[in-house]
Amino acid sequence: MSQKPFADNIHWHDSVVTKQDRSQLNGHKSCVLWFTGLSGSGKSTLANAVNQRLFEKKLSSYVLDGDNVRHGLNGDLGFSPEDRQENIRRIGEVSKLFVDNGTIVLTAFVSPYRDDRMIARKLVAKEEFIEVYVKCNLEECENRDPKGLYKKARNGEIPEFTGISAPYEEPESPELVISSDETSIDTSVEQIITFLEKKQII
Amino acid sequence: MSQKPFADNIHWHDSVVTKQDRSQLNGHKSCVLWFTGLSGSGKSTLANAVNQRLFEKKLSSYVLDGDNVRHGLNGDLGFSPEDRQENIRRIGEVSKLFVDNGTIVLTAFVSPYRDDRMIARKLVAKEEFIEVYVKCNLEECENRDPKGLYKKARNGEIPEFTGISAPYEEPESPELVISSDETSIDTSVEQIITFLEKKQII
Repeated sequence: MSQKPFADNIHWHDSVVTKQDRSQLNGHKSCVLWFTGLSGSGKSTLANAVNQRLFEKKLSSYVLDGDNVRHGLNGDLGFSPEDRQENIRRIGEVSKLFVDNGTIVLTAFVSPYRDDRMIARKLVAKEEFIEVYVKCNLEECENRDPKGLYKKARNGEIPEFTGISAPYEEPESPELVISSDETSIDTSVEQIITFLEKKQII
Repeated sequence: MSQKPFADNIHWHDSVVTKQDRSQLNGHKSCVLWFTGLSGSGKSTLANAVNQRLFEKKLSSYVLDGDNVRHGLNGDLGFSPEDRQENIRRIGEVSKLFVDNGTIVLTAFVSPYRDDRMIARKLVAKEEFIEVYVKCNLEECENRDPKGLYKKARNGEIPEFTGISAPYEEPESPELVISSDETSIDTSVEQIITFLEKKQII
């Protein structure tokens, strides 16, 4: 680069670090692991366990979930159909930025509607979107009820609660299905890591 | 971890990879380098040049600018005062996520209002926000006019254009000031890298 002030560098072009540059430095590709399933199915637990495993392998990965998104970026959104859609759209767009930065991003949101998940899917390349359906029957989720939300939904304190008073649209062709009421966390993590290896992402 | 299904792991807690864990692995701390200044002052050019230098040092860094934010995450926003504020708020929240992931995030937006920049500043820890005022006199910016925006603003094609028909509120106490009409890109990059080293971020 020259020592002239910016203004004299009329032919200077921004040097942009690309996704490919970052992947080469990281030693792995990036993607979105989109966990979807009922409240209490184990999405966040599983996403964090996979993230931990990836971290131990010194790979670049990050979890987006209610803890860091709902009160921050999406703190202005409620639970109306429009707001739910905007919630998922923004999470998809942020995921795309992380993927662009070479990071394996793991999102853990109920994301009950097929159309909304399709919006997120279409933001990245085909091979970069991995839908992980964390499958668990409603009774089991309701028994777990880790945040006491089902109880509130049954009492009518939460309107339009997925599985109780609002639909959950099962994925039609997810890349992965994890039956969390039949499989251990360790086995589930292994299943996802193996998938990433098979697809040569890691 | 046990081999039992999720449901039986009633005392299992999410294993969360923290910002500290990530920093330790990366070998450096994370922060926001918030570039602010008039259109054409050189914010994006400078942010990308610093990003390139950090990449060459194998550090984790990422640029948020109009190219990857305005048409994606903030594609639903216009240029009204409310939308400008929401634009900056979301950029601040996304920056916070990148900082949480151990990344040095460089944002390159005009961000003309002090109050809006203060919102972004307050989202992260005091030492994590570095406001970089890219200072350049209006005549110089208008001469450069890299995107032809000043010409359109003068023709009345763009209402409320910062510097022409809308105010730019200069930072009162930015961590760094780069006079892009007097300093070369190389020297400016060096000034920022030195600052990061002095603050023991890298």
